[in-house]
Amino acid sequence: MNRKKIDLITQAMEEELVEWRRTLHQIPETGFLEFQTTAFIVSKLSNLDCQLFVGEDVMTRADRKGMPNDKELNRYFESGLSIDDVLLEQMRGGMTGCIGVFDSGREGPHTVVRFDIDALPIEETSSASHVPLRENFMSKNPGSMHACGHDGHAAIGLGVAYVLDELKDELKGKVTLIFQPAEEGGRGAQAVVSKGWTQDGDYFLSGHVGFLEKPVGTVALSTTKFLASTKLDVSFSGESAHAGKSPEEGRNALLSAASAALHLNGITRHSKGATRINIGTLHAGSGRNIIADQATMTIETRGETTQLNEYMRTEAERIIQASALLFNTQVVITETGYAQGGRCDVEWIGWGKEALQGSRFVNSILDETDLGASEDATAYMNDVQQHGGKATYIIVASPLKAPHHHPEFDYDEKVLAVAVSTFARLLSYHHSRNDI
Amino acid sequence: MNRKKIDLITQAMEEELVEWRRTLHQIPETGFLEFQTTAFIVSKLSNLDCQLFVGEDVMTRADRKGMPNDKELNRYFESGLSIDDVLLEQMRGGMTGCIGVFDSGREGPHTVVRFDIDALPIEETSSASHVPLRENFMSKNPGSMHACGHDGHAAIGLGVAYVLDELKDELKGKVTLIFQPAEEGGRGAQAVVSKGWTQDGDYFLSGHVGFLEKPVGTVALSTTKFLASTKLDVSFSGESAHAGKSPEEGRNALLSAASAALHLNGITRHSKGATRINIGTLHAGSGRNIIADQATMTIETRGETTQLNEYMRTEAERIIQASALLFNTQVVITETGYAQGGRCDVEWIGWGKEALQGSRFVNSILDETDLGASEDATAYMNDVQQHGGKATYIIVASPLKAPHHHPEFDYDEKVLAVAVSTFARLLSYHHSRNDI
Amino acid sequence: MNRKKIDLITQAMEEELVEWRRTLHQIPETGFLEFQTTAFIVSKLSNLDCQLFVGEDVMTRADRKGMPNDKELNRYFESGLSIDDVLLEQMRGGMTGCIGVFDSGREGPHTVVRFDIDALPIEETSSASHVPLRENFMSKNPGSMHACGHDGHAAIGLGVAYVLDELKDELKGKVTLIFQPAEEGGRGAQAVVSKGWTQDGDYFLSGHVGFLEKPVGTVALSTTKFLASTKLDVSFSGESAHAGKSPEEGRNALLSAASAALHLNGITRHSKGATRINIGTLHAGSGRNIIADQATMTIETRGETTQLNEYMRTEAERIIQASALLFNTQVVITETGYAQGGRCDVEWIGWGKEALQGSRFVNSILDETDLGASEDATAYMNDVQQHGGKATYIIVASPLKAPHHHPEFDYDEKVLAVAVSTFARLLSYHHSRNDI
Amino acid sequence: MNRKKIDLITQAMEEELVEWRRTLHQIPETGFLEFQTTAFIVSKLSNLDCQLFVGEDVMTRADRKGMPNDKELNRYFESGLSIDDVLLEQMRGGMTGCIGVFDSGREGPHTVVRFDIDALPIEETSSASHVPLRENFMSKNPGSMHACGHDGHAAIGLGVAYVLDELKDELKGKVTLIFQPAEEGGRGAQAVVSKGWTQDGDYFLSGHVGFLEKPVGTVALSTTKFLASTKLDVSFSGESAHAGKSPEEGRNALLSAASAALHLNGITRHSKGATRINIGTLHAGSGRNIIADQATMTIETRGETTQLNEYMRTEAERIIQASALLFNTQVVITETGYAQGGRCDVEWIGWGKEALQGSRFVNSILDETDLGASEDATAYMNDVQQHGGKATYIIVASPLKAPHHHPEFDYDEKVLAVAVSTFARLLSYHHSRNDI
Repeated sequence: MNRKKIDLITQAMEEELVEWRRTLHQIPETGFLEFQTTAFIVSKLSNLDCQLFVGEDVMTRADRKGMPNDKELNRYFESGLSIDDVLLEQMRGGMTGCIGVFDSGREGPHTVVRFDIDALPIEETSSASHVPLRENFMSKNPGSMHACGHDGHAAIGLGVAYVLDELKDELKGKVTLIFQPAEEGGRGAQAVVSKGWTQDGDYFLSGHVGFLEKPVGTVALSTTKFLASTKLDVSFSGESAHAGKSPEEGRNALLSAASAALHLNGITRHSKGATRINIGTLHAGSGRNIIADQATMTIETRGETTQLNEYMRTEAERIIQASALLFNTQVVITETGYAQGGRCDVEWIGWGKEALQGSRFVNSILDETDLGASEDATAYMNDVQQHGGKATYIIVASPLKAPHHHPEFDYDEKVLAVAVSTFARLLSYHHSRNDI
Repeated sequence: MNRKKIDLITQAMEEELVEWRRTLHQIPETGFLEFQTTAFIVSKLSNLDCQLFVGEDVMTRADRKGMPNDKELNRYFESGLSIDDVLLEQMRGGMTGCIGVFDSGREGPHTVVRFDIDALPIEETSSASHVPLRENFMSKNPGSMHACGHDGHAAIGLGVAYVLDELKDELKGKVTLIFQPAEEGGRGAQAVVSKGWTQDGDYFLSGHVGFLEKPVGTVALSTTKFLASTKLDVSFSGESAHAGKSPEEGRNALLSAASAALHLNGITRHSKGATRINIGTLHAGSGRNIIADQATMTIETRGETTQLNEYMRTEAERIIQASALLFNTQVVITETGYAQGGRCDVEWIGWGKEALQGSRFVNSILDETDLGASEDATAYMNDVQQHGGKATYIIVASPLKAPHHHPEFDYDEKVLAVAVSTFARLLSYHHSRNDI
Repeated sequence: MNRKKIDLITQAMEEELVEWRRTLHQIPETGFLEFQTTAFIVSKLSNLDCQLFVGEDVMTRADRKGMPNDKELNRYFESGLSIDDVLLEQMRGGMTGCIGVFDSGREGPHTVVRFDIDALPIEETSSASHVPLRENFMSKNPGSMHACGHDGHAAIGLGVAYVLDELKDELKGKVTLIFQPAEEGGRGAQAVVSKGWTQDGDYFLSGHVGFLEKPVGTVALSTTKFLASTKLDVSFSGESAHAGKSPEEGRNALLSAASAALHLNGITRHSKGATRINIGTLHAGSGRNIIADQATMTIETRGETTQLNEYMRTEAERIIQASALLFNTQVVITETGYAQGGRCDVEWIGWGKEALQGSRFVNSILDETDLGASEDATAYMNDVQQHGGKATYIIVASPLKAPHHHPEFDYDEKVLAVAVSTFARLLSYHHSRNDI
Repeated sequence: MNRKKIDLITQAMEEELVEWRRTLHQIPETGFLEFQTTAFIVSKLSNLDCQLFVGEDVMTRADRKGMPNDKELNRYFESGLSIDDVLLEQMRGGMTGCIGVFDSGREGPHTVVRFDIDALPIEETSSASHVPLRENFMSKNPGSMHACGHDGHAAIGLGVAYVLDELKDELKGKVTLIFQPAEEGGRGAQAVVSKGWTQDGDYFLSGHVGFLEKPVGTVALSTTKFLASTKLDVSFSGESAHAGKSPEEGRNALLSAASAALHLNGITRHSKGATRINIGTLHAGSGRNIIADQATMTIETRGETTQLNEYMRTEAERIIQASALLFNTQVVITETGYAQGGRCDVEWIGWGKEALQGSRFVNSILDETDLGASEDATAYMNDVQQHGGKATYIIVASPLKAPHHHPEFDYDEKVLAVAVSTFARLLSYHHSRNDI
């Protein structure tokens, strides 16, 4: 895998990368609803010389978390009727995403690369200065938006696939490109991992555009401060009663939730590092003069490490159970998302520096940068590392118009080519045939 | 006002009473939205020899409480385009309800009688055994239902008006019939009182069908245990922030509400009598990982007396303010309803017994019965009593299919005639000319 | 039992009654520490022709509640070395109190009369106007005081015993006089009842001096509003930790107690009647920078009826358990006192009125008066009534210098003779031989 | 200041250092009660050629925090009657501590060195293996103990003074040795600083024995992680009432404190670094059936920086005020201690390494070590640094028998000479005459 060739191939597809990204930007689909998105990616990969996996082959159905409700699933499924019938059927029930495997047949390592493809439930801005508006590639799905750059990630993944396809004769070992659904909320990665895709992985790569607000051309070769996180939905059930005539007959779910909120907020700080808890929403009760018999809360815990997050989660679950007992209500706690903590292997810093020498796209390399957020790529990282593999998560910098998850979020499209070249060069380190 | 004539006139209009009630049952309108209901009543009263008041004459605009939002007001206003233009215009902005005054011109006392006309935000049952379904007079307003019998009250009021009209030559003094909007939640009475309608009232009468589950024909001449009550809407505003990255920048409205709920529930019991507090609903927050900047609660306080309710309200307001301070949020407390405590004058028991002697409709008389609920008729009662007037609130019994405020609520329509005759006979006690 | 004789005998012992009361006032002993008090009563009863019971015969050791600690028990036991050795030994471990049985041998009913003898942990006032100071019979036990008149009750009991002894030839049936320890806090009655003393009781009498602030000579023949009550001691144990260095290692007992306090205070009101909860004291923690591993609370619940109190107690226990769970602490709940609700039999009003006719001491009789407090005499009342017996609790009025349980509490000693005569006359109703 | 001479002088006084330390160990006095301790130090310093300051000259009376109560002050004052009258009078009211100034008269910088001298309210162990017991120098003040090594600090300070005195001809500039009272709880430093002692300080030195559990001979030249901390005493006052008869008349201080405790514990985490809050003790209420009118809490806040601690303190104060408002009580918040955050100047690492070259006592030097605790020496550090001065805080390692603040705390007395030599050598860096 000649690195100069990588840059030339990348350069040649710059326009295409932008086109792909813009196509995807217009069809943003949130987690497990990526029917059109997957179909687009599949249509591109099917032109290439790789093995293609969809549906049940991609992930373990039961291990997906935070599924959309059936109504949503059906609505999106039906909106996909233009999609090839066979493919659509395989994705029924939200089995979205796809995987392309480039197996050289030649001896060599196995590297897994992950690109996430889901959008966010955010209404895209119609501010006049918003580039997607000005250049006419705004979201066509009201209420959904690619506000975290996963449209770009999918395009970059396709770019890497095209490079691998063109240089297949120079490849050794096996490269698996995962186009993963439902990264937001930490809902999809575990289901892919439990399908076994990283089981024999020697190396793992993933990354993100943006995040680091430096000029395009800057790349950080590893990332710190992955916050482990757990998302919980909590539902208290009590018994309603007339608040004036027989209050003692009620069992008050609203007060269980209120007490849970206060006590969750007071989980003791941990001396080993930063932790977080948030009760994001609380909805309870049906009428002013009725003892509330239903209450729901959405909460999340975080920790600088998986252990710190586990501490928070264990505390949270006990507090929630106790809050039910306080008011004699029942409670159901559902995990709707999970991201582990993680760490990058320092070896990739050295490997990366060597692989990026002479790059036409990268002019500034950082050893590491902070993420300070949650990312379910850590599920793959930890799995690969447990088997002795080496993983990293790179940041490909871009100036941003607004923060991630903001209705005005946008990045510089030049970052797409930088990322394609960078991933391909990193792959070249272990996958270039020695014999040519 | 010959009492036998009263019974005969009532008997003759039994079918009409049922018809009126059924018409009204099909157009249930909640508080301050009684456009069609008012128009129907006005159309009937305008056939009679009485002075008719609508719009600004009925109540003081600013003293209404718990107004529906503008969208609702407009929707209902526009649905009333079949109504006479002039009348509709007078009701613009929810100035519903009407008043008919029968002034004999002859010296005599002034009695005010109040009938409430609003419906409830309840979806009527479609159970096969439900009489309105079987007999084809179900609610035509989805989500609204006459589930407390105010359709009957309006019909009874019309019946009393017809009796007065027929017997106008036997009448002395003045009788004012108030068709009041928005009794539910204690939102309308005060605005009528503050307009001055009871200012010179010598007597006040009101009452309720149902409540007392005895055979039709039973009447209680006075009522005890009016619970004073205050309805408050509470809205906390804080500041949102990313719960992971900068939680300290948030000001948490959800937690202010949660703390308020717990502490409100703990208002100290009062040794002078029963009190109640309920936090009926709590809604807060916009997303799992965002510090909630908005929270709303609907609450109500009650007390066996106006004083006990005032104790609860004072405590509640201080606790709510303190809960804002706890989390550095702002709070707005809006009173959306209020019912005073009240007591009936025992004189009416004696007067009533005499007036009901020989009734064709009433065969069982109770001195008093418990209400155990809130009723804004107390606003009139207290006003009349402050000027030395005498008031009572009667219960006209009926078997019920389901409790008040229940989707299957229904009563025996025979109660309508019983009530018309009873009110008219009670009026006859003080308003019959002595000289004929 | 000639009623005129009763009055004459009483009149003759008036000075002695005062002397007894003053002796007892000087040796106030709180619950289960009444060693000297019991010895004094025993010394008097042993002069009379009655059967005398002490120690294990009086009550079931294991059913006593809220025992003083061993140190206190030993201190008081040793201070009783002047007491007869045999008696003292029988009272070891706080088996105080005594019972005198006057069994005529003649057929007739069995009446149980209860007098309580314990003092309060209150420091007696040294205000110059305080009669015990002026007349030199102040408490000699620092920190203890007869501030509820049980010194008088014991003296009255002795007076009744003397009357019964003098009139033994006129007596039929059996009269049992119980001198009960530890009424305060509801700690002693149940242990006497469970020993079986009221098992075959046909009638039960008890009562109180003071309470009703009317002139001496007024007696109420029955009492309402006995508040059922439960006294609980709560002790949370957690784990201490350095609050700065390793807060997560602590399990915070202080916060368990704080949360319990708030939630106990918020036990939902009951529609069937008045209830109360109080967290009287809370002590927690050992140092500012240490996570508190210990917390104790003293609480009490009350209810207008035994059922209402049980509701409160059940709620309280669940809330306390949940508060331990909230902070992962352990909790021990100890019942240290209990008083049932109770009601007097109206028959005693008629019987009493007849028995008091012509009294030299009583000049004003009330049918009933409110107690509005807790009284463990209800344990005997309920037991007797369960077997068809008839019970009452009388109030023997006196002006008071200060409220019950106040350091300046004092009553008019003339009430002693009024009470002796009244009890003896009430006994005469069922116990006078018919054949003489 | 020849460094070899420093070591020789130190070596010669090793026995004396141990003797001084043991004398002080026997008279442990907690903050602002160091009457005997101060007298001992003064007696030693008065033999030397330095200016000596006591009483009002040492600190600003009003700026002392967390004063002992008058009873304690008097008790300790009177126990000091063996002390010189004039000195004792100057210390009246807890104006303890003293300052010795070695002013060479020669041009040169001003260095301030601080030694803390107070003990802890801990009962010393009587475990057989405890060296002070075996060697007969146990605390003679029951309940007080030198359990943090400040006895050693005082002895070291005297040692440094003796070295300065012997080498005064080789000194330039001015050295101020502060023997500060009441370091524990952060109560004394600010009062010394506000007297102006560091106003013109060019350098500041202080340090601690122990802490770093390495062999004697190890020294860390700077310290990180000073936790800023604020100690607050909180006192709520409400109104008592009978919990059964008139609960609504009470204003519940116990519940104010309970609510404050819960909400303080829930102060939102800060993204900029570690924070802490602890409610160490809570005491409330006077009796089971009385609404509690008094409650007190001792709390402390901490933060990795002064700013983070200020965040905690501001939040805490608002929450405490709100908790009073919740239950309509009054509250008084008293600051009883305060320690700022701080940082050492890196220049001292280089200076220190040079100064310690060839030391007979120090054989291992660390650039820095963590404190992870609060230390009011930061008050001097920050003051000196604000004027451009350079400060450090050294750790002189010793194996420990038990952690700091433990009844079995003890260190290796060889550390005393190591510390004297180290401080003197550090002083020699800037204070050695260049001209000899």
